[in-house]
Amino acid sequence: MKRKICVVVASRANYGRIKAVLKAIQKHPKLELQLILGASALLERYGDLREIIKKDGFKVNATVYMILEGENPVTMAKSTGLGLLELPTVLTRLKPDITLTVADRFETISTAIASTYMNIPLAHTQGGEITGSIDESVRHAITKLAHVHLTTNENTAERLRKMGEDPKKIYVTGCPAIDLIEDADLTIQEDFIDKYKGVGAEIDFTKPYIVVLQHPVTTEYGKGFDQINQTLQAIYELKIPTVWFWPNVDAGSDDISHGIRKFREAHKITFMHFFKSMEPEDYLRLINNCKCIIGNSSSAIREGSYLGIPAVNLGTRQDGRERGPNIVDIGYDKEEIKNAIKKQVKHGRYPKSTIYGDGKAADKIADVLAKCELNLQKKITY
Amino acid sequence: MKRKICVVVASRANYGRIKAVLKAIQKHPKLELQLILGASALLERYGDLREIIKKDGFKVNATVYMILEGENPVTMAKSTGLGLLELPTVLTRLKPDITLTVADRFETISTAIASTYMNIPLAHTQGGEITGSIDESVRHAITKLAHVHLTTNENTAERLRKMGEDPKKIYVTGCPAIDLIEDADLTIQEDFIDKYKGVGAEIDFTKPYIVVLQHPVTTEYGKGFDQINQTLQAIYELKIPTVWFWPNVDAGSDDISHGIRKFREAHKITFMHFFKSMEPEDYLRLINNCKCIIGNSSSAIREGSYLGIPAVNLGTRQDGRERGPNIVDIGYDKEEIKNAIKKQVKHGRYPKSTIYGDGKAADKIADVLAKCELNLQKKITY
Amino acid sequence: MKRKICVVVASRANYGRIKAVLKAIQKHPKLELQLILGASALLERYGDLREIIKKDGFKVNATVYMILEGENPVTMAKSTGLGLLELPTVLTRLKPDITLTVADRFETISTAIASTYMNIPLAHTQGGEITGSIDESVRHAITKLAHVHLTTNENTAERLRKMGEDPKKIYVTGCPAIDLIEDADLTIQEDFIDKYKGVGAEIDFTKPYIVVLQHPVTTEYGKGFDQINQTLQAIYELKIPTVWFWPNVDAGSDDISHGIRKFREAHKITFMHFFKSMEPEDYLRLINNCKCIIGNSSSAIREGSYLGIPAVNLGTRQDGRERGPNIVDIGYDKEEIKNAIKKQVKHGRYPKSTIYGDGKAADKIADVLAKCELNLQKKITY
Amino acid sequence: MKRKICVVVASRANYGRIKAVLKAIQKHPKLELQLILGASALLERYGDLREIIKKDGFKVNATVYMILEGENPVTMAKSTGLGLLELPTVLTRLKPDITLTVADRFETISTAIASTYMNIPLAHTQGGEITGSIDESVRHAITKLAHVHLTTNENTAERLRKMGEDPKKIYVTGCPAIDLIEDADLTIQEDFIDKYKGVGAEIDFTKPYIVVLQHPVTTEYGKGFDQINQTLQAIYELKIPTVWFWPNVDAGSDDISHGIRKFREAHKITFMHFFKSMEPEDYLRLINNCKCIIGNSSSAIREGSYLGIPAVNLGTRQDGRERGPNIVDIGYDKEEIKNAIKKQVKHGRYPKSTIYGDGKAADKIADVLAKCELNLQKKITY
Repeated sequence: MKRKICVVVASRANYGRIKAVLKAIQKHPKLELQLILGASALLERYGDLREIIKKDGFKVNATVYMILEGENPVTMAKSTGLGLLELPTVLTRLKPDITLTVADRFETISTAIASTYMNIPLAHTQGGEITGSIDESVRHAITKLAHVHLTTNENTAERLRKMGEDPKKIYVTGCPAIDLIEDADLTIQEDFIDKYKGVGAEIDFTKPYIVVLQHPVTTEYGKGFDQINQTLQAIYELKIPTVWFWPNVDAGSDDISHGIRKFREAHKITFMHFFKSMEPEDYLRLINNCKCIIGNSSSAIREGSYLGIPAVNLGTRQDGRERGPNIVDIGYDKEEIKNAIKKQVKHGRYPKSTIYGDGKAADKIADVLAKCELNLQKKITY
Repeated sequence: MKRKICVVVASRANYGRIKAVLKAIQKHPKLELQLILGASALLERYGDLREIIKKDGFKVNATVYMILEGENPVTMAKSTGLGLLELPTVLTRLKPDITLTVADRFETISTAIASTYMNIPLAHTQGGEITGSIDESVRHAITKLAHVHLTTNENTAERLRKMGEDPKKIYVTGCPAIDLIEDADLTIQEDFIDKYKGVGAEIDFTKPYIVVLQHPVTTEYGKGFDQINQTLQAIYELKIPTVWFWPNVDAGSDDISHGIRKFREAHKITFMHFFKSMEPEDYLRLINNCKCIIGNSSSAIREGSYLGIPAVNLGTRQDGRERGPNIVDIGYDKEEIKNAIKKQVKHGRYPKSTIYGDGKAADKIADVLAKCELNLQKKITY
Repeated sequence: MKRKICVVVASRANYGRIKAVLKAIQKHPKLELQLILGASALLERYGDLREIIKKDGFKVNATVYMILEGENPVTMAKSTGLGLLELPTVLTRLKPDITLTVADRFETISTAIASTYMNIPLAHTQGGEITGSIDESVRHAITKLAHVHLTTNENTAERLRKMGEDPKKIYVTGCPAIDLIEDADLTIQEDFIDKYKGVGAEIDFTKPYIVVLQHPVTTEYGKGFDQINQTLQAIYELKIPTVWFWPNVDAGSDDISHGIRKFREAHKITFMHFFKSMEPEDYLRLINNCKCIIGNSSSAIREGSYLGIPAVNLGTRQDGRERGPNIVDIGYDKEEIKNAIKKQVKHGRYPKSTIYGDGKAADKIADVLAKCELNLQKKITY
Repeated sequence: MKRKICVVVASRANYGRIKAVLKAIQKHPKLELQLILGASALLERYGDLREIIKKDGFKVNATVYMILEGENPVTMAKSTGLGLLELPTVLTRLKPDITLTVADRFETISTAIASTYMNIPLAHTQGGEITGSIDESVRHAITKLAHVHLTTNENTAERLRKMGEDPKKIYVTGCPAIDLIEDADLTIQEDFIDKYKGVGAEIDFTKPYIVVLQHPVTTEYGKGFDQINQTLQAIYELKIPTVWFWPNVDAGSDDISHGIRKFREAHKITFMHFFKSMEPEDYLRLINNCKCIIGNSSSAIREGSYLGIPAVNLGTRQDGRERGPNIVDIGYDKEEIKNAIKKQVKHGRYPKSTIYGDGKAADKIADVLAKCELNLQKKITY
């Protein structure tokens, strides 16, 4: 009898960080993949993943709409609640042996609570990592609910042990985001705009360009408009061709988007192009060939460290996250941002760091899911 | 400007464990009490607390219906979701400076997530305690979300520090449940049946009687019917006058209730009386004068240890909870249960234990809430 | 290709009124039955129908918990909302060609709105009937949403035509509740208490007894306690053996239940027995052999008229409902009630009335569902 | 004691149709206005109304997020459910004497059901009007729930009487949308783009331009993309300066938006400008000075007939709606659309029609709300 592993993919970021595992589960002789697609992964505004996931050869067992529109703290909390109303219906039908949830978003804690209250063992990736924002709290809360920890490296494993998790349930597998890099052909593709449309200026991807991803910081709700304006102004003055991604669905997303739109209305910008989302491999190709990543996305640190891409990390969202040498950390200040970008572009590529894994995580994770002992009752170790 | 402290009371158990704090907040010159009443605290089946709370002099600022009827794992998860849909509406209106949540129930984690995603600092009681059931996981998950820890004793405080919580945010206050004992006149009242009605035989409270509280164990969902039958059979054979409380609203509640009803239909029972709920002080009077508490309620361990009431604890629900000498732990077995009850009744009262506090928790908690520094961004300490 | 007919059964009353149709759909060569069980039909307090439905040979395709506990106007409105959150998930999965909804309850309008907004044609029974309570408004509102009307008699059909419904979509089929009577062996069974347990005194079903069903009137919310007390007092004084059913889940249910429990606590009653629910055929056997039905259930009028059972109808809940000669209408007054019961018991059985059908509705309905033209866009006829 | 009138405004369209009534209630000596703002009226994508409403001098008593993002039939049904979960909380707090709901949207039926199940009398505007789409069914369903009908003209009043509504509860007031026209200074303003931004080409509002509003037709879900493309192509070929409004939040909205965006990506368009929303009076100014309105918005028929603006109505969405001479009805066909626009632009302004009222509706409505008898129990008249 195969173990049924139910994976909830709830955003474009989720997908890139778990796709390699989906493939590994799919081909594992003792596992059966169940895929739930939910939240912003179903929404056109954030990049509907359905077509991509279908093309990648995965069957979606259930779709779960759960985003209450509003992009503020109230709707983020209520969306978590909607996830908790919806997911038990689906889990009742799919009856998985294990639920696998990714990282630290509100959809992730919906999944974690639904699964554990329904007595379905919960596996979790990215446990033991550190950041800022509410994600920091939520990630550790999910750790306390999870039965199986699929963690990035020995440091995060040690942190999970310190937190009182059973050492026998902590598996150092590396992050499967790195597997994608190993598996992909990162030769540049020049058809990003043709493929993903988006809005803004044409970008010549054979020439130097930079990439921006700046998300709202939920614990600094209300400051996003000013924060994004510093970045916009800095890059406007630098006049480097820029690929800019719209922010994710967190509270404050609207402030960021609004800031971007307002800036575009006020300035003629001939060197920025805006995308909602890309296939994970295309995103890797995009950043692999860029001169610098700017913003507060974990991808600059996680995938960026392995690729050695120079990156400028802004503000507190990634505070404490383990990072390679490719990162320069600064605050929300136009001049600082300009200087840091200039410095990083000039520096060029950094050596590869394997703090987030060596590209072999997915098979290890599939093996753990196939063989791990499953006990419902958790108990702190001290 | 007074700090507004919003307390969510979601069950009869919650109320007994926080009532002393409500009073302390109410009379504190720098605090303003906001009281949300929700979940089973509003339901006739579990003992509607509205009249009691009004009589106790508290104003209810909002009522939140959130129990999806069904008493199973699916409805428990969905009820958590309903809480998350409802509470943000109320918190938006009340705009508290701090939300205070009690212990480890699904309503508690609804409150915790709503508050933290809405950037309202969260205070939490009973953090660092250990039990069985899903409550064990949920309690520690709430700890990882909470900004202020109001904990029972040095052992639990040490556990919170080990879990990576900021030592400056951990306050050893004792459990306010003990304050109620100190403040109450525990002289026996003989009018329990007249006051609370209930169903079953008359009990002469001037003569020896025992008290049973047996709740479902969510992680053992589906076994409640057999579990309660062992207890019913044991006490049926002992023929000691018994006050029996209906189970709480957790998944499996129906199995327990159904077991009780079925047993009553099959047997003529002339010495058991069944209650839904009591005012906290009456409950203390009731157990203070009983010969033994049987079941898996934490009250046998928490309040019971301070009062020194002999108690028989069944199964895993309280596994790992710190206990005084008054507890005998056994499994779900009729003969074991009979023997343990006989032994405990014969033993008589135990010496007072102060592991759960010395009766001065409420004022300490109010002081902490009035003075503690409030930072939204948490950070694990290692 | 068979047409998939999705029927939502949401209460014990629903089930009796549609069971014959479920069977007819099941055996129809051009139809496939999809059965959703929801709301109080899943709840132990109101008589969980799952076992009965399984025994009756139906497969349940989905269960939908949607009752927010509280039994008041707020929770009734919110439960309607929960139905609307849950049903689209199930309808998306089942993809029926037609949804069939019964009568006029809040679950019915949830089903009606879910189906029509999802562009699934809606069939409706009991359209054009008249009553009191909010059901009167809700029934007609559902008519305005429904695409196919399966109505009881020429009078109700005429009313639907007057309301502007397309005459070609109005089918006079009779009420399938009457089919059950025709198909069932109504010879008395003496094992009701053994089979359904319940609480209260033993009843000798070979001797004269009466049956009471009194539901809350939502539009008179807050008056239920007084209303039920008049009935309780009247029957207490008559001292006739009585089978009493607990009220349904509507707002005010708790007032009625509370009234009953309080009365039982205050009086030693040796001739009343209380049931939650029965299989539809057993219920027919029960009323077929009783001396009088008392309360405000439509079954006294609908099934009662066909069987010719003397009945006393109380208050406004059935105002305007077409009735046979078996009904005496009075208000909530103890003396009136006593007199009316005495008169009806003395009168004995009335002649059969076929205003609610001739027992051949189910096959007609199945045929309509198999053959009717389906257009999504409705248009009032004037 | 003033009667508290609670008005739920849930979209930009709602607001224009009820703003005059809000003012009339506000200044009426016997009325107190309670304003709930919800659904797309709170969302940046559809034109957040909060600032406009504040500027107009209204206090918002509650905001209700209820749009589950997805813009499809499933999320439309579920959003209706969310409204029903949220509105009772607000109505419990506001305790209005009457709830007033506008027209025929899913937010409208949420309001209608919440209010009636909570025993709060419901007043309704636009009852008795006829259209296509699901709105046709929903409008009449709301009529069957409503206690007070504030209808447009004698024709609609007669239709309500035919539907079985109590003639004493039907008030012919005219549509308050017309009042706004009477009260506003419709002299052209040239700063629309400066004031509302939007995207696209500059428009010279002193020269001829046309206005397009094309919403999804829910009952034709899936066809919106093709439908909008005919319009886009037609106008692209006509090359007339065009002000284009994004579609409303109904199921299929995304198809329309996606069609527009795709068309813009594929064509260089130098004469179209896209807006999300406008203040009601600015919208009136805009259409009052345009050469033709194209699409399927009721405003072309309602406000358009009074202003005499030539309009081309597409498809079935407004089927059956009473119209003045200003309307040309055609299907979704590029050539037809081109010809019709040319013909209408050439024709020029039509004579004023008062089928939707004479501009004095708001005061009449306020008077009705102040004086009407309130009975909860409805009863069909035949």
